[in-house]
Amino acid sequence: MKAIIIGATGYGSAELIRLLYQHPHAEIGGLISSSQAGGELKEVFPHLSHLTFTLEEMDPDRIADMGEVVFFAAPAGVSSEWLPRLAEKGLTCIDLAGDFRLEPQAYAEWYGKTPPPSPWLEQAVYGLSEWRRQEIARADVIANPGCYPTAALLVLIPLLRSGAVDTETIVIDAKSGVSGAGRGMKLTTLFCEVNENLSLYKVGTHQHTPEIEQHAAALSGRSPRVMFTPQLVPMNRGILVTVYARGVEGWNQERLTETFQEAYEDAPFVRIKEPGSWPRTKDVQGSNFCDVGVYWDDRTDTVVGMAVIDNLMKGAAGQAVQNLNLRMAWPETAGLTGTPLYP
Amino acid sequence: MKAIIIGATGYGSAELIRLLYQHPHAEIGGLISSSQAGGELKEVFPHLSHLTFTLEEMDPDRIADMGEVVFFAAPAGVSSEWLPRLAEKGLTCIDLAGDFRLEPQAYAEWYGKTPPPSPWLEQAVYGLSEWRRQEIARADVIANPGCYPTAALLVLIPLLRSGAVDTETIVIDAKSGVSGAGRGMKLTTLFCEVNENLSLYKVGTHQHTPEIEQHAAALSGRSPRVMFTPQLVPMNRGILVTVYARGVEGWNQERLTETFQEAYEDAPFVRIKEPGSWPRTKDVQGSNFCDVGVYWDDRTDTVVGMAVIDNLMKGAAGQAVQNLNLRMAWPETAGLTGTPLYP
Amino acid sequence: MKAIIIGATGYGSAELIRLLYQHPHAEIGGLISSSQAGGELKEVFPHLSHLTFTLEEMDPDRIADMGEVVFFAAPAGVSSEWLPRLAEKGLTCIDLAGDFRLEPQAYAEWYGKTPPPSPWLEQAVYGLSEWRRQEIARADVIANPGCYPTAALLVLIPLLRSGAVDTETIVIDAKSGVSGAGRGMKLTTLFCEVNENLSLYKVGTHQHTPEIEQHAAALSGRSPRVMFTPQLVPMNRGILVTVYARGVEGWNQERLTETFQEAYEDAPFVRIKEPGSWPRTKDVQGSNFCDVGVYWDDRTDTVVGMAVIDNLMKGAAGQAVQNLNLRMAWPETAGLTGTPLYP
Amino acid sequence: MKAIIIGATGYGSAELIRLLYQHPHAEIGGLISSSQAGGELKEVFPHLSHLTFTLEEMDPDRIADMGEVVFFAAPAGVSSEWLPRLAEKGLTCIDLAGDFRLEPQAYAEWYGKTPPPSPWLEQAVYGLSEWRRQEIARADVIANPGCYPTAALLVLIPLLRSGAVDTETIVIDAKSGVSGAGRGMKLTTLFCEVNENLSLYKVGTHQHTPEIEQHAAALSGRSPRVMFTPQLVPMNRGILVTVYARGVEGWNQERLTETFQEAYEDAPFVRIKEPGSWPRTKDVQGSNFCDVGVYWDDRTDTVVGMAVIDNLMKGAAGQAVQNLNLRMAWPETAGLTGTPLYP
Repeated sequence: MKAIIIGATGYGSAELIRLLYQHPHAEIGGLISSSQAGGELKEVFPHLSHLTFTLEEMDPDRIADMGEVVFFAAPAGVSSEWLPRLAEKGLTCIDLAGDFRLEPQAYAEWYGKTPPPSPWLEQAVYGLSEWRRQEIARADVIANPGCYPTAALLVLIPLLRSGAVDTETIVIDAKSGVSGAGRGMKLTTLFCEVNENLSLYKVGTHQHTPEIEQHAAALSGRSPRVMFTPQLVPMNRGILVTVYARGVEGWNQERLTETFQEAYEDAPFVRIKEPGSWPRTKDVQGSNFCDVGVYWDDRTDTVVGMAVIDNLMKGAAGQAVQNLNLRMAWPETAGLTGTPLYP
Repeated sequence: MKAIIIGATGYGSAELIRLLYQHPHAEIGGLISSSQAGGELKEVFPHLSHLTFTLEEMDPDRIADMGEVVFFAAPAGVSSEWLPRLAEKGLTCIDLAGDFRLEPQAYAEWYGKTPPPSPWLEQAVYGLSEWRRQEIARADVIANPGCYPTAALLVLIPLLRSGAVDTETIVIDAKSGVSGAGRGMKLTTLFCEVNENLSLYKVGTHQHTPEIEQHAAALSGRSPRVMFTPQLVPMNRGILVTVYARGVEGWNQERLTETFQEAYEDAPFVRIKEPGSWPRTKDVQGSNFCDVGVYWDDRTDTVVGMAVIDNLMKGAAGQAVQNLNLRMAWPETAGLTGTPLYP
Repeated sequence: MKAIIIGATGYGSAELIRLLYQHPHAEIGGLISSSQAGGELKEVFPHLSHLTFTLEEMDPDRIADMGEVVFFAAPAGVSSEWLPRLAEKGLTCIDLAGDFRLEPQAYAEWYGKTPPPSPWLEQAVYGLSEWRRQEIARADVIANPGCYPTAALLVLIPLLRSGAVDTETIVIDAKSGVSGAGRGMKLTTLFCEVNENLSLYKVGTHQHTPEIEQHAAALSGRSPRVMFTPQLVPMNRGILVTVYARGVEGWNQERLTETFQEAYEDAPFVRIKEPGSWPRTKDVQGSNFCDVGVYWDDRTDTVVGMAVIDNLMKGAAGQAVQNLNLRMAWPETAGLTGTPLYP
Repeated sequence: MKAIIIGATGYGSAELIRLLYQHPHAEIGGLISSSQAGGELKEVFPHLSHLTFTLEEMDPDRIADMGEVVFFAAPAGVSSEWLPRLAEKGLTCIDLAGDFRLEPQAYAEWYGKTPPPSPWLEQAVYGLSEWRRQEIARADVIANPGCYPTAALLVLIPLLRSGAVDTETIVIDAKSGVSGAGRGMKLTTLFCEVNENLSLYKVGTHQHTPEIEQHAAALSGRSPRVMFTPQLVPMNRGILVTVYARGVEGWNQERLTETFQEAYEDAPFVRIKEPGSWPRTKDVQGSNFCDVGVYWDDRTDTVVGMAVIDNLMKGAAGQAVQNLNLRMAWPETAGLTGTPLYP
C-alpha cells in the first residue's frame, strides 16, 4: 500500500514520513508541497538525508497514480479544497487539519474559513481511534483529531459516559510543546522568545474548544460546556491536559480508577497511571502512547483527569497511522510499536 | 543596616545575596551554613567569585553581632528552632520557609513537623507586601509567602474581595520552573529528567494549598475552597498560576479589568495586562514584578485570572527585600528597580 | 536469541531495552541491577510501564540460563570483575564501559582502577563497527567504544590513513549533551545548573583521550597526539566533535570530501555532508547515524573534521546492537532502521 | 546625560535600555526604529510595560536634540550611512555593528557592503575596553567589538603579548547562545530547530574572523592566523570561546596563570579562574563579567585559553556602556555592578 503526503514540509509530515518509512505494510508513494515543489526532501529535512524524494506539485491526477491513501498534513483550508477531488478518484483520505472535524457553522466561526462541501463533510468520520474503531474501519474520509482534543477527549469521555462529573463545571488547562505551532516563521516561536518562558495564548478562543465540546457530546451522550486554556511550554514535543470538574456524589478514587481501566482495557496505546502517580510528557516522547491519570480530591470533591501525549504522534501523525491501520484492517499497532525515547 | 542570611547555599540565598549586594541601604553582615561552614562562598557559587565571604556556623550570639536583620533561607523546620532565639536578641526576622505562615494544626498536618512556639508564631505577619504594608512595617517576625501563594493570592484577593467569583469553584492550575525545587540532589530535578518534560506532582496535596486558603480568607474576608495542582516546567525560573472560578452574574470583562487596576493602583510591582493580552513568565525574569491578567469567558461564565512571577524574586528573595524595605521605612522599591532580563 | 543487560537502571540501559524490544532477532532475557534488585522496571522507568520486568541480582549461574549474550551497561570496574565469569560460561559479552578498551597501564592511569585480567583483555575486540567488522564477527568479548571516541575516530581515521593531516597538531573540541553523564545524582547535572549553561570539564584529563590516541593509531597506522577538551551542552542527547589539524600540502576540499565518501561507502550509518553544509546533533537524534562533515580552510591550511552522533545510540547502545548484529551475522542494520526523531 | 538608541527593537537594544534605565549618570533620550516608528516600546517588549516610550523615525536633526550620545544597535550598514551625519552634529557615537571595526577592504570582503566614509572610519576607536581605555576616553566614534571577538581577544592578547604561543597555530572554537542571532525571523532560530540541537555555521567564513586577526595584531604587536569556527548552542545567552595554540618552550601552567592575573589586575570585569577550574557561561549571565581560564597541557604542549561572556552584555550592550563610562570619565563600572543572575 502506498501513501501520499500533502504538505510535506512541516513537522507533522516529518513524523508521518518517519512512521511510514518503518511501517510493515505501507510505504511512501509521493510527497506533495506546493511551496517547495521540485526541491529535494533532504534539503528541507537534513535528518532525512538517507532518503531520496523529490517534492511534487499538487496534481490530483498524478497523485491518484501514486498510491491509495492520502494524508493531508497541510494548514486548514487545503483539504476543504482538494480532498473532495482526491476522494472522488477513490483515494482514502486522512486529514490532519481541522476542516472535517466540525459542524459547518462552528468551522466557519472558529476558523474563519468556508467549510468543506457537505457531502464530503457528512461522510467524514472523526478519527479518535479508541472510540470510533468500527466507523474508521469503513471510512473513506477520516478527520484526524486535533492534538489538544485527542488528549482532552481521552480523559473526558470516560468521565462523561460514567456520569462522574458535573458537565457544567469543566475546565481544561492545556499545555503544549512548541512543535504544535508548526515550522512557519513567527516571532512567537523564535527560540529566544519561547525558551525560559511559559505563556498563555488564545485564552477562551482556541479553535479546539468547539472540537472538544462537539465530540465529547457525540461520543458520550452528554453535552459538556468547556473552558479551555492553552499554554506554550519551552519544549519540542508533548501535551499535558489537566481536566477539572466537580465530582458527582458517590464517586471516589477507586471508582474513578476502575472506570478508566475498564474504558481502555483493549486500547493498546492508553496506559492508566496507578493512583498517586501522575503522567509526564517525556514518558510518551516519540511514541503513540497516551498516559492517563485520574484523581479524586476529597477536600473539594473535584475530579482531576490528566493525559499526556506526544503532540506529533498520538496528537497527529501517530494517530493518523493508527487510523490507517484500522481502515486497512491491519493490526492497530502496526508501525507504532516504538518505545518512547527516554530521556 | 546589615543583614545575615541563614541557609546560604541555596538558590533563594544566591538571589538574596544578589539583591543585598546592590541594595542602596543594606549590606551583607554574614552568611550562615551549617552544612558548609568554613567554606568560601565562591566555591559554592562560582558566579560570585568577585565576592569574598566565608560561610559560618549557626551561632546565635555571633549572629546577633553581625547585623540587625536576619533572613531564613533554610528548609522548613530550621526557623521554628532558631528564629525565636534570634528574635529574642532583637533581630528582625524574615523567614522564607513555611514555618510561620500557617495555623499550627495546618502546619503540623501539611508539613509533618512541629509548629514553632506560639508566642512567636502569633506575632508573625504574613508578608504579602501589597496587602499587608502597614502590619509589615511594624513586624519583628515576617513570614515571607511561598512562591505559589504569592502569585495565587495576588489574583485571588481582588476576585474574592469584589465578590466576582463563586468561592466554591476555585481551581488553581500552577506551573513552576525548576529552581523552586531547590539545589538539593534529587532524581526528579536532574537535567535529563526535567528537560523536555512537563509533569505533575503532589496533585491535591501540596503544602501551599492551606497557605492559599488561609490567607485568601484572612485578606479578603471570604473563605474559598481551592483545588490546587502544581506542575513542573522545564525552565529555571518563573511561575504561572492560572486561576479558574465560576463568575458571578453581573460581572464582565470591563468590570474585572477595572477591579484589578484599582486594586493595584499603588503597587509598584504589579502590572495589569490589557484585555486580550496575557502574562508570560519571561516578562518578569530576574525582577520583582508580578504581571496579572484577567479574562471573562462569555461562553461559560468563567473567570480566568493569571499571574506570573519570578519564583526566586517576587516568589522569595525579591519579596523578602520588599518586606525589608517596608519594615525599614525605605522606599518600597529600594534595591528592586532592576528591569527584567530579556530574553 | 536472548540478551541480558547488567546495570539496568541507567540511560544507556533504557536505550538498550528500547532497541532490543524492537529488534527482529533478539529479545530481552533478563535485567540485572545490584542496587535495585527485586524492583520493577516500570518503577525505575515509567516510560516503560507497558513492559513487565523484575530487576534481578547479579548471579552468574542464573544469568547464564537467561540467554546467550550479555551487555554490560554498568560503571567502569563492574565488567572487569564479572565479565570473565560470564565469558567463561560461554556468553558473548559486549561491554559498554571503558574496562576493556585500553592497554592495562593506560586504564590504570586514567581510570584509577585495576585493569581486567589479561587473557580476557587480550581477546577483547574494540567495537568501532565500521573499522572492525571482521574481528567483531568473531569476537567473544567486545569493548564497545566510548561516546566521544566513536565520533572522534570516525573523523580521525580517514584523515590519518590518507595522510591528509599533521599528526602532531590534532585538537579535538568535543561537546556533549547531559545524558552522557548518566542518571546518578550530582550537583553538576541538576537541571538548574546545566540549563542555560555551557561549561568545560576535565580539560586535558578526560579518560577518553588515551582511547582516541590508542585506537586511532591501531586503526590507521599513524600515531597522533591529541589535545582533547570536553564541554557540557544544555541538551539531553547528542555529541558534536570538532577536530582540527594542520593540513598537508597537496590536499584540498575536493580530495577531503572524496576521501570520506570512499571511506564510508559501505557504512550504512555514516552520512557524509556535502561541502558547505555542516552536521547538527538533532539530525541524528534517536538514531544510529553518524553525520560527518569535512572542511579545508584555504586561509590557514587547517582541516576541520566534524561528526555528530546520538551519544546513547551510536555512542553507546546503538553501536552495541550494531556489534551484536555483526557478531550474529545478522544484517548490520537489524533493529536500527529507525529514522531520527525530528524535532 | 541623555542617550539615544538607534535600532531599538532588537535584543541588544533591550539590553541597552535595561542598563541605561538603571544607570546612575545616564538616561534614555529617545528610541529610534525605522521599521516600527510610531509604535509603543511596550508592544515590542512586553517585559518593559512599566516604561513609556514611543519609537521614533530616524531624523538626524531631531536626534541631535534628544541627547549627547547615540548607540547604534542596528544591523550592519545602518551606521555607515547615518553615523557620519550624527557625529557631524557633535554626538558621541557608539556603534554595536561591524561597520567601523575593520579595514575597509576587509569590511567589503567579509560583509559584502560598502565601508563607511574614511574620515569617520579612521577616527573610530576599537572599543575593547580593557585594552583601549585611554583612546576610548577621547573618542567620538567608538566601534564596539563583536561578541566573539571580545571573548577571543581577551584570551588572545595576553597570550600573544607574552609570546607564550605560536601565532601560526591558533584555533578558536567558539560557541554562542541564540540571542546572538538577533530577533529577526529565520528558520534556523525557531525554537524547535535550535532546542535539543547543537550545530555549526559559517565554518571558516564568519565575519568575526578578520576582526579577531586585525585587532589581535593591533593590540599585541604579533599577527596571528586564526582558524575560527562558530557553533550554535541551545540557550538564550552566553558565549564560550575555547582557544588552542601550540605553546612555546619554557612556558607552563604557573607562568600562564600569572600572565593572565597580571594582564587583568586592574580590570574590574575580568575574573581569572584558578588552575583546575573552568569558566561556565551561566556564571556571567546578565552581567558584564568575562571569566577567563587558561590551561597548559603537558602531554601535547598545547595552551588552551577559555573565556565566557554574556553575549548581550560584555559582548554588546554591557561593553557599550562600559565604553560610555570611559568616554564620560565616569567610574568604569557605573551602571554595571549587577551580579550575575543565577541560576
